[in-house]
Amino acid sequence: MIKKVDHIGIAVRSLEAALPFYVEVLNLPLLGIEEVESEKLKVAFLQAGETKIELLEPTSVESTIAKFIEKRGEGLHHVALGVDSIEERIKEMKEKGIRMIQDVPKIGAGGALVAFMHPKSASGVLYELCEKKGMKG
Amino acid sequence: MIKKVDHIGIAVRSLEAALPFYVEVLNLPLLGIEEVESEKLKVAFLQAGETKIELLEPTSVESTIAKFIEKRGEGLHHVALGVDSIEERIKEMKEKGIRMIQDVPKIGAGGALVAFMHPKSASGVLYELCEKKGMKG
Repeated sequence: MIKKVDHIGIAVRSLEAALPFYVEVLNLPLLGIEEVESEKLKVAFLQAGETKIELLEPTSVESTIAKFIEKRGEGLHHVALGVDSIEERIKEMKEKGIRMIQDVPKIGAGGALVAFMHPKSASGVLYELCEKKGMKG
Repeated sequence: MIKKVDHIGIAVRSLEAALPFYVEVLNLPLLGIEEVESEKLKVAFLQAGETKIELLEPTSVESTIAKFIEKRGEGLHHVALGVDSIEERIKEMKEKGIRMIQDVPKIGAGGALVAFMHPKSASGVLYELCEKKGMKG
């Protein structure tokens, strides 16, 4: 059911300040930078093996990520698990008593279908289910 | 240089309480449970694609993980990047101005050689370099 860790989401104040560590120090390939208007975010993706590092910079104080940074500082925000058939997985999660933040998947960065689970269901970790439509891997 | 995300370290109060979510809900294979005496930890490993989820339960209030949980609650603790030649990588990191918590690798769970970078060098994320001696992947 879980194919891989699709990406690790990291809250940062500024992509410009955060990127040199990933690109120049770790030498990870920068796949692209994208604005996700619905989430008030600017997102940079870097590749590390089969997993992506997703850097999340808020573009508004209203963004969930801005509130996260204000409360906890920059750092690890969520882990996305790559799945097929996300609707079925959401149904299965709910049958198993997991509290979903989204019952119906929404469209996230890169056009993926995503749904978050409530951290109370997972020892404080915010997990995302993530399906890449029409993409393998 | 970075081969993959080797594992994601998660601080939990109790493996017994945390494991059912991973094993019964997510259906991830449980690879084993190990006591790491030097770190005052009991550690469970689960496989998710090429990455492992490492659940960290403190066995003493003196453990770094016990202090982390007291301060921030359960949740994401660190990300380990799989590398070859960890000594060379540490040298390279330091030449690039990164503050290492360990200048010399120590032995972590599963007998791996590990060294942590200071989160101040990486937008608040605690990264570990991790070399599996005599293991591929």
